[in-house]
Amino acid sequence: MKTRDRILQTSLRLFNERGERTITTNHIAAELAISPGNLYYHFRNKAEIVYELFQAYQQQVDYYLTAPGSQPLTLADLAWYLEAVFDGLWQYRFFHRDLESLLNADPRLRSDYGDFTRRCLAAINGIFEQLASGGIIEPRPEPLRSAMALNVWLVITNWMAYLKTAHATEGPAALSLVELKQGIYQVLTLELPHVSAAYRERVLALRETYRPGTFCSTTRQNR
Amino acid sequence: MKTRDRILQTSLRLFNERGERTITTNHIAAELAISPGNLYYHFRNKAEIVYELFQAYQQQVDYYLTAPGSQPLTLADLAWYLEAVFDGLWQYRFFHRDLESLLNADPRLRSDYGDFTRRCLAAINGIFEQLASGGIIEPRPEPLRSAMALNVWLVITNWMAYLKTAHATEGPAALSLVELKQGIYQVLTLELPHVSAAYRERVLALRETYRPGTFCSTTRQNR
Repeated sequence: MKTRDRILQTSLRLFNERGERTITTNHIAAELAISPGNLYYHFRNKAEIVYELFQAYQQQVDYYLTAPGSQPLTLADLAWYLEAVFDGLWQYRFFHRDLESLLNADPRLRSDYGDFTRRCLAAINGIFEQLASGGIIEPRPEPLRSAMALNVWLVITNWMAYLKTAHATEGPAALSLVELKQGIYQVLTLELPHVSAAYRERVLALRETYRPGTFCSTTRQNR
Repeated sequence: MKTRDRILQTSLRLFNERGERTITTNHIAAELAISPGNLYYHFRNKAEIVYELFQAYQQQVDYYLTAPGSQPLTLADLAWYLEAVFDGLWQYRFFHRDLESLLNADPRLRSDYGDFTRRCLAAINGIFEQLASGGIIEPRPEPLRSAMALNVWLVITNWMAYLKTAHATEGPAALSLVELKQGIYQVLTLELPHVSAAYRERVLALRETYRPGTFCSTTRQNR
């Protein structure tokens, strides 16, 4: 692996494990056993690394959110989307942990993140339309559909912060991917009232697999 | 006003305006034209001030969330609740801006905030029941009602962060109370599918007063 890629990979791991704020470029260089000078040859500062990691994150999200075009979606597609979104949140979890500071520190990142949010909201809106074509949810007119998409976004992007702030006894490191994916239970709760009668039982069954405390790991690993 | 109260009031204003992280006890003392020694006589450190402000915040929220007991609620009650919640968010807006760091820095605050979250979720759940008794929403069984309450909480507590991160062109200081209260539009969007037929038009009309870009300040100031 190229040094540049190793720097990115190691930075991502350290940011996720210990928080971006506590990690300096010196920590990253030390972890890689390279000189700070070698690191600076690839990235001028930590903000450059964060920006590059955000590019990778948004590329990944853009890839799966825009992949299926506009054909009708199945319930398996919906489950796949939700898994992909929460996998991405997990993989780049440092990012949403301290988003506002990151954006305040880098106007370019702020501008990109604003565009990213708008693309995601448009994609969620499109997914609602495709789920309606697939007969899974009832078609909803605008501006309701956009407001629904925004609520999905608000629930998804706040879920990790909720887990990390609401639990009095657990430290910030205690979060697991399994807990994170319980957020899918909340997203499907949002969708429930809009699900068509024909699909209600199946959506309820899918939702149940993400219920806190009733998680069945075999089901999900095979998905 | 007592010095102790002046310290709290000034700290709250500075934290809200410039972010808790950038304000030191020296800034607070300078703003009040008192000596740091005088400030330390009242509060050992900044964390003590933050903790005291959180006590005031949760006391305020507890007061209005538990006020009405269990009688059926009217639509005016619901509007009042939503206004009160968003007024509280605005008044103590520094708090949700950097919640995770604040909780990581103070185990006592973390424990209290966890309890506060659980009380709020129980209160939102109770409000759903009272709205159902009042005929405004359809009764929903558990565990659906708890999951709905959690989504309301996730939308409310993420709304400010959304406003501050999604807008590429606006700085963090640009947020206004009017914009913040547009979050009520999103909360009412969550409730819409559960609203009874008899109240649907009235809830839609209430929701419309909070729609981004169509805010009517006279309506709200007279409420």
